[in-house]
Amino acid sequence: MQVVEYRPERHEYAWTFGGVAPTHRITPGTCLKLWTEDAFSGRLTSTTHRASEVLDMTEVNPQTGPFYVEGAEPGDTLALHLARLTPARDWGASSTIPFFGALSVTDRTALLHEPLPERTWIYQLDRDRGVVRFEAQSIDLQLELPCNPMLGTVGVAPPGREVRSSLVPDVFGGNMDTPEMRAGVTCYLQVNVEGALFSVGDGHYRQGEGESCGTAVEGAMDVTLLVELIKGQPAPAWPRIESDTHYVVVGSSRPLEDAWRASQIGMIAWLGELYGLDRLDAYQLLTQAAESPLANVVDTNYSAVTKIAKSLLPDAAAYGGVHRHLREQARTV
Amino acid sequence: MQVVEYRPERHEYAWTFGGVAPTHRITPGTCLKLWTEDAFSGRLTSTTHRASEVLDMTEVNPQTGPFYVEGAEPGDTLALHLARLTPARDWGASSTIPFFGALSVTDRTALLHEPLPERTWIYQLDRDRGVVRFEAQSIDLQLELPCNPMLGTVGVAPPGREVRSSLVPDVFGGNMDTPEMRAGVTCYLQVNVEGALFSVGDGHYRQGEGESCGTAVEGAMDVTLLVELIKGQPAPAWPRIESDTHYVVVGSSRPLEDAWRASQIGMIAWLGELYGLDRLDAYQLLTQAAESPLANVVDTNYSAVTKIAKSLLPDAAAYGGVHRHLREQARTV
Amino acid sequence: MQVVEYRPERHEYAWTFGGVAPTHRITPGTCLKLWTEDAFSGRLTSTTHRASEVLDMTEVNPQTGPFYVEGAEPGDTLALHLARLTPARDWGASSTIPFFGALSVTDRTALLHEPLPERTWIYQLDRDRGVVRFEAQSIDLQLELPCNPMLGTVGVAPPGREVRSSLVPDVFGGNMDTPEMRAGVTCYLQVNVEGALFSVGDGHYRQGEGESCGTAVEGAMDVTLLVELIKGQPAPAWPRIESDTHYVVVGSSRPLEDAWRASQIGMIAWLGELYGLDRLDAYQLLTQAAESPLANVVDTNYSAVTKIAKSLLPDAAAYGGVHRHLREQARTV
Amino acid sequence: MQVVEYRPERHEYAWTFGGVAPTHRITPGTCLKLWTEDAFSGRLTSTTHRASEVLDMTEVNPQTGPFYVEGAEPGDTLALHLARLTPARDWGASSTIPFFGALSVTDRTALLHEPLPERTWIYQLDRDRGVVRFEAQSIDLQLELPCNPMLGTVGVAPPGREVRSSLVPDVFGGNMDTPEMRAGVTCYLQVNVEGALFSVGDGHYRQGEGESCGTAVEGAMDVTLLVELIKGQPAPAWPRIESDTHYVVVGSSRPLEDAWRASQIGMIAWLGELYGLDRLDAYQLLTQAAESPLANVVDTNYSAVTKIAKSLLPDAAAYGGVHRHLREQARTV
Repeated sequence: MQVVEYRPERHEYAWTFGGVAPTHRITPGTCLKLWTEDAFSGRLTSTTHRASEVLDMTEVNPQTGPFYVEGAEPGDTLALHLARLTPARDWGASSTIPFFGALSVTDRTALLHEPLPERTWIYQLDRDRGVVRFEAQSIDLQLELPCNPMLGTVGVAPPGREVRSSLVPDVFGGNMDTPEMRAGVTCYLQVNVEGALFSVGDGHYRQGEGESCGTAVEGAMDVTLLVELIKGQPAPAWPRIESDTHYVVVGSSRPLEDAWRASQIGMIAWLGELYGLDRLDAYQLLTQAAESPLANVVDTNYSAVTKIAKSLLPDAAAYGGVHRHLREQARTV
Repeated sequence: MQVVEYRPERHEYAWTFGGVAPTHRITPGTCLKLWTEDAFSGRLTSTTHRASEVLDMTEVNPQTGPFYVEGAEPGDTLALHLARLTPARDWGASSTIPFFGALSVTDRTALLHEPLPERTWIYQLDRDRGVVRFEAQSIDLQLELPCNPMLGTVGVAPPGREVRSSLVPDVFGGNMDTPEMRAGVTCYLQVNVEGALFSVGDGHYRQGEGESCGTAVEGAMDVTLLVELIKGQPAPAWPRIESDTHYVVVGSSRPLEDAWRASQIGMIAWLGELYGLDRLDAYQLLTQAAESPLANVVDTNYSAVTKIAKSLLPDAAAYGGVHRHLREQARTV
Repeated sequence: MQVVEYRPERHEYAWTFGGVAPTHRITPGTCLKLWTEDAFSGRLTSTTHRASEVLDMTEVNPQTGPFYVEGAEPGDTLALHLARLTPARDWGASSTIPFFGALSVTDRTALLHEPLPERTWIYQLDRDRGVVRFEAQSIDLQLELPCNPMLGTVGVAPPGREVRSSLVPDVFGGNMDTPEMRAGVTCYLQVNVEGALFSVGDGHYRQGEGESCGTAVEGAMDVTLLVELIKGQPAPAWPRIESDTHYVVVGSSRPLEDAWRASQIGMIAWLGELYGLDRLDAYQLLTQAAESPLANVVDTNYSAVTKIAKSLLPDAAAYGGVHRHLREQARTV
Repeated sequence: MQVVEYRPERHEYAWTFGGVAPTHRITPGTCLKLWTEDAFSGRLTSTTHRASEVLDMTEVNPQTGPFYVEGAEPGDTLALHLARLTPARDWGASSTIPFFGALSVTDRTALLHEPLPERTWIYQLDRDRGVVRFEAQSIDLQLELPCNPMLGTVGVAPPGREVRSSLVPDVFGGNMDTPEMRAGVTCYLQVNVEGALFSVGDGHYRQGEGESCGTAVEGAMDVTLLVELIKGQPAPAWPRIESDTHYVVVGSSRPLEDAWRASQIGMIAWLGELYGLDRLDAYQLLTQAAESPLANVVDTNYSAVTKIAKSLLPDAAAYGGVHRHLREQARTV
């Protein structure tokens, strides 16, 4: 297996999906060992920091990539297997940001209120115990929360000649901010342009479902990634994720019900592909069996998840069993 | 403990929250052993049935109650502990209904399409194995899904002189359709009128998060319920649920993000009451620790859940520890 | 023509649609000369008043009625012709109210911000010049705005056994807050219960489209109303309004696009009834010919309007020409 | 005045805002005489055409441009005065398109229904009488509708390094589809990149408010445009339009209430700039004086309008009276 290691310099970050020249050309089957900077571009490091003072809002959510996958053509399916996600620092940061967040006035939920107060929280990571530490600022309270590393942002170049900010989630993936994007899963994305041009970033050491204030426990991440290309199958309209235990579809739109509807329709299509269920039967099965944890209710589009446990379903091999194959390969890298 | 057993006759069903005379007057501390009819009023019993033909849409979602709680006054908090939920039949039913369901044109998502086809599924219950059986109709596929009994509808009389259909979820509870409403939990509701006038119904032997097609595995239910009244504490704006493992708040509105926002604001208030966290700290904690499984995306209002694991939090005794107390009592009834 | 004059005492106000005994039983063809109190129940009278201090939020938007119409049955259409709307006072009032308004945090758009500041504006009415006077408080600016009297609230008892607050607009009409509800129009409402039980209130001396802050130039109103009953025609799903120049349908829901979609579907149905256009042709005609002024984006449901100019259409006589008939009658009362 | 005439060849069309090299570099003060192709790229010419058969969905809504304005820098305001809009053909076309339209299932309002039937309407233009002719296909009905030429799409390169499809409306303008964009108005747009890089297209011979089915009376257009650049004033967050009679702001987002809120916040800012009104006074004034006609409820973002009549306001000279100046110049070109 070819292994490519890459830690981008600051001037090499990508800020968009599409519109950027690839940093590498790789072949399917490559293993990438990447470093990703945090969504704050590393600028938020202290509880005394105010986001509006230390952040450059034109340089948030830096991406590592994009990678040009040889042979990838529109209509193919890109499979990205997250072999390992390891926090690259011993702390993560989160902050309220003026006019951002699910419970805040924003440029889209445009009301007449003053912005919420700014506050920054720093989470220390205890690698041995596998926890990050929440430290309240209004009272004397410290809580240990399990460290559950994930990537907020995984995406390819968008369709329709568009270039989208790395802050946006949509059909091309992007800033979906779902805790489902953790080590051990395979993400399937529709290839929209030659080479697919995928990139990753936005490591979270932990995130709640919905990402209420808009920023998770943001942290630089060491990412080990296996890349595969699937030809000759219908590519998914919306991003799919496969884990050992679940099938997952992520929809992104506004209002939130439309994001969720997209994930449901995506799952109905997937169940049809896997088992031959017609749409009404798949609709019924989801009605009784779907899990629907929210991903984010803060980004340019909201993201919602439909997932279903493999334990409830007959055995199947999505995309010819590529997930199982990559899962095994991942043990060797 | 006073025990009241009650199986309503068909003419005794309540179809609304508010606007109905109580069937019983009970004192706090009472144990109720109730029977609830399914949401179809028992009319949908065969896969050959079409909802539009066998249902009377003016008689759906019958409620058992309402119960007048002696001493309950506006501003008090009603605590309903679901001691036991036992399927009262050996089968449940689900069906698509014209102009109803999350992935269907409705009177609210009013488009020009013809209604979706009608199809009815009957789920056989295997009590020994604790499963209900999904039988596909488009292909030869049968799946066993765990039986997870829950109540779709738990509510009190609404505020503001209103009378609401039993199909509606809102601040008074009602048709929230969340799988969180299962045996072993305590539901806290704000009392809006003298006597609280609560009722329950809409048993589901199982439901996915979101209740996609609009009808879960609907089934008659035997319900054992403990009733308490909490005076002198701020009553919750939105319904709260406490289990042994989680604090849960249910918000209901449209669009879906507003339902979820309400549940988040409700949880921020609860965390403030329990621990003294200020709103920004609670907002931050939710950002990293909240679970956000959807309840329903089909009813007059959508319902979304914010929950947080007690294991992540310091010990606390919500409402003076009433949940633990009722949980113990429940073992004796 | 029978004429009934009625000015309710304060204890006679209705606060809901449905759930209230009729104040009068009238026959179709009756002329009502009514007085309606303003939405603040007359309590907001000075720019020094703060809404949160002087209002009783359990007593806002008082209705005059309900009226029981002899012979009205579910499925009939009630026609209410607004013959005259005359301001009953020489001033109107408007105010920001905490947690209310389109550009404010509310219990539904639940964010963490403090409420907006409260401010009250009093508009003096100049009857001779037909204007109300806006007086800015931040700078020295006074503007004369045309006095365009309208009723914010016209409705019947709801279907489905419900009782709804007079603050709510929905299929039964209610608090639609559209400037289209002015003198000279006929409003068509589906009868849901025996007697229809309609009431009116919430006079506005003037209102912008959308009613941004949630309160128009609110003022007591003298209302002259002609009542007709239409049997044997399909009753409209959503409220319709006919003027000399336009056909209008009002939809109410959330999110706002659903309110508008309802109004569009309602108009497509009406064009089908009037001309026999099929749904695609009517859809196309609306695409090019509809006017879509917003009504309110502040109430429990938002209300949106679809209207179409009669001058663009062939002659037709909706409901047998009842509007023209009532318009003529109105000149005599 | 420098005059540039330009009719793009088919290979010169722009399909995005941003991401395209300018076809011309012009100086402020230039008069452009342009030709724009219709949104169907001229492919839909007969009622026998089905959109799904004759359209290439990767080549819809072609733009003429972009134009690089010398001296334009981020933060400046671009003023585009529409001097003349003249239909360039004697007919226009409209069509339902599968999975597109306000009353249709779409990729965003993703439901399980089959697409609506396809139908194409051709409107003959009678230049003498100034009307286009609607011909129903379900019955024998022809209607004359006034020809009101407008541009659906006017925009600059987006901020944040993005490239957006010409189908999208947002802060950069784009596919707003508002009938307010007619001859005689001046459109103000925030400059986001050097040279502004604006383009125009999507002529409509007529459009209803909301553009229900998604396609107006689409037609090629001869466009005479005056270009000015405004330095040293706060650039508008959302597109503004000034006519002889109204100030207009266009907001674009989803859900629809957020589009409208953006337009309201934009107008409150403008009233503050023009008159010094504080935000509460401006909010109040809009409450009583705003007109709120919808623009589109069909595009990637919905667009809503807030407008206010100049006749209700004191005299003012927005941007130093540039509209009046351009209006006069327009008479000479």
